[in-house]
Amino acid sequence: MERRILLIVLDGLGDRANPSLRYRTPLQVARTPNMDALASRGSCGLMDPIAPGVRAGSDTSHLAFLGYEPYEVYPGRGSFEALGMGMELKPGDVAFRCNFATVDENLVVKDRRAGRIKEGTAELARAVSGIEVDGIKFIVKEGVEHRAGLIMRGEGVSERVSDVDPHEEGVRVNKPRPLEPGAERAADALWEFLLRAHEILKEHPVNLEREERGLPPANFLLPRGPGRAPDLQPFGEKWDLKAAAIAGVPLIKGICRFLGMEVIEDPRFTGGVDTDMVAKFSTAVPLLERYDFVMVNIKATDIAGHDGNPEMKVKLIERADEAIGETLMDLSDVVLVITADHSTPCTVRDHSGDPVPIMIISEDVRRDECTAFDEISVARGTLRIRGTDLMPTLMNLSNRAEKFGA
Amino acid sequence: MERRILLIVLDGLGDRANPSLRYRTPLQVARTPNMDALASRGSCGLMDPIAPGVRAGSDTSHLAFLGYEPYEVYPGRGSFEALGMGMELKPGDVAFRCNFATVDENLVVKDRRAGRIKEGTAELARAVSGIEVDGIKFIVKEGVEHRAGLIMRGEGVSERVSDVDPHEEGVRVNKPRPLEPGAERAADALWEFLLRAHEILKEHPVNLEREERGLPPANFLLPRGPGRAPDLQPFGEKWDLKAAAIAGVPLIKGICRFLGMEVIEDPRFTGGVDTDMVAKFSTAVPLLERYDFVMVNIKATDIAGHDGNPEMKVKLIERADEAIGETLMDLSDVVLVITADHSTPCTVRDHSGDPVPIMIISEDVRRDECTAFDEISVARGTLRIRGTDLMPTLMNLSNRAEKFGA
Repeated sequence: MERRILLIVLDGLGDRANPSLRYRTPLQVARTPNMDALASRGSCGLMDPIAPGVRAGSDTSHLAFLGYEPYEVYPGRGSFEALGMGMELKPGDVAFRCNFATVDENLVVKDRRAGRIKEGTAELARAVSGIEVDGIKFIVKEGVEHRAGLIMRGEGVSERVSDVDPHEEGVRVNKPRPLEPGAERAADALWEFLLRAHEILKEHPVNLEREERGLPPANFLLPRGPGRAPDLQPFGEKWDLKAAAIAGVPLIKGICRFLGMEVIEDPRFTGGVDTDMVAKFSTAVPLLERYDFVMVNIKATDIAGHDGNPEMKVKLIERADEAIGETLMDLSDVVLVITADHSTPCTVRDHSGDPVPIMIISEDVRRDECTAFDEISVARGTLRIRGTDLMPTLMNLSNRAEKFGA
Repeated sequence: MERRILLIVLDGLGDRANPSLRYRTPLQVARTPNMDALASRGSCGLMDPIAPGVRAGSDTSHLAFLGYEPYEVYPGRGSFEALGMGMELKPGDVAFRCNFATVDENLVVKDRRAGRIKEGTAELARAVSGIEVDGIKFIVKEGVEHRAGLIMRGEGVSERVSDVDPHEEGVRVNKPRPLEPGAERAADALWEFLLRAHEILKEHPVNLEREERGLPPANFLLPRGPGRAPDLQPFGEKWDLKAAAIAGVPLIKGICRFLGMEVIEDPRFTGGVDTDMVAKFSTAVPLLERYDFVMVNIKATDIAGHDGNPEMKVKLIERADEAIGETLMDLSDVVLVITADHSTPCTVRDHSGDPVPIMIISEDVRRDECTAFDEISVARGTLRIRGTDLMPTLMNLSNRAEKFGA
């Protein structure tokens, strides 16, 4: 019988031996009776999100364990950065990173960061987003401080255009040139858009007010580093699964939307340490009546790792365990997976290349010797896979995989 | 914080169940309190030097765990054999295996091995080494008995020349022919060199004395099996590590030099069972102040395996453990690795394709459940990698790896 699949990603869960925890990991130290009970009923092990030792980003790891070879699809990195800003990306889109900058009447760059402008960029982005030139649509969204994302969408867009950003001050912005035949239209449209946006930005109330206060106006968008969003087969089509996702952070929501998954929104899903884990899980469970595959990403554990705070990480893991205990202990006809997208050791304060613990619970999954869910105990288990092996493993255990051979 | 890396290779350490050891391995039987203590503080596991079941050479395995894909770089096998003879090899060099042979005045081969000549080949090699023809330099070094190595170095060398060795006696030596356009110059220069060397060899005192004693003179070099040294990125550049190596055997020293590592020489590093292990380790430790990466190869364990002598292997392992106890127990800010390049089971008397035990000790490395270092106990650990995964794993644990993604 085919089963549904529920994939819980405790972001950055994996860790290393922490001196302040007597050389144990936060997951070893945390009291996790519910995850341990699940481990006793399932198959456990370790997963290298990309390959042994490779430090995965959240984007590359999610791509890998959703079944896409990251080294093949990730060269369009600029486009994934747009996802991180919460922009919606479609296959074929070309995305740039931008600065809001200050130029004079001759388009000479006076300040590449417009005085590191902090406020008003959302209004400025809205004022110029959506402009169409020659059938190409330009979408702008503000990022942190002076940063912004720019997407070109439509027939004839190209990432093979030269940088507009001169990367120094006191010189004129560069008119974009086509870097290959066929990119002329994109280069011309980009330039036309930037000039039109400049006309709008320089008269915008946010900038008029800045000038009154003696601050450099954010009157020009300086794009650089274009990347084309890869034309990936949608997740649902690739695996023949109706799929939904629950996540708080823009990057993960963006990746899921880009892969054609339904992203369920709720103000309680904050992507912070205050996220309502029970709400996330208890939203996910009934979704399994309408979707074959539901993924839930909990960002909080990663944040504690980045903060280098093992005590906080222990507490957040215990909160996750309680939320799991309330919601996920008695699912039937479901393949439940609990794992991480990468390790974020508190000793490193960033992602590391250490493998992540994983457990898979299902009616007839092999029940191995693991009775606790942590990086060390699971090594006794039966799973030892890479990220790109996860979807085939889940397709098998949910009795959905096609046979290869007779 | 970035750490330094110390890689200890106990050559041929891995073994199989030995009937004379009541079906345990020498490493299981040996008393190794120091390695066991280190195992308790680190991550342990098994490493397939190339891939499961593949019988690695010392050259292919060292290449693999230093981060080079052996199936891509090893086609220049002849060149690695020159390294094994202690010749210095440079990228682009073409190396041949040779026999010292006996020819008559018409260059007809009378004895392909010059009566299996045992003495005097060093003098003969010296007499013809360094000759230059048409800007190509020919370097000769004696091997065991009638064997020798020949390196062609310089602009225009080619491995695409036909064999000079006729592989039978009673026929004339073959004048080398170019096997592709562009190889003419190499073929001509090689022939010219061989004729000049013949003139020198036939008058050499070693051969005149042999003829007086009725022995066949070693008056011709018969090259065969040319291979071009691959143009590999130097190890230090590839991993951004300042690297040194300590080894006794010519092959390992040659590979390390070829990869641009600094090879530290000392008459106590013999490459035999008499090697001074304490001297090797205690030379390595202070090197870590000047180098980011230090590798030490201990050949003795492999020799016992080739000899099929499990008792000797047990003793040599115990000697290694004592030396480790004296020198390597309290390194700080170092990622310490103890492993082997391949298994050399006493039951096989040669390299086998069985995986090797590995342990990695570092301040925050995961401390897994292993408390003993042997082929069986480490299977409970957290590591299960291939040789080519080792450098990424060490780059990660030394906090030197770049992140792939966001």
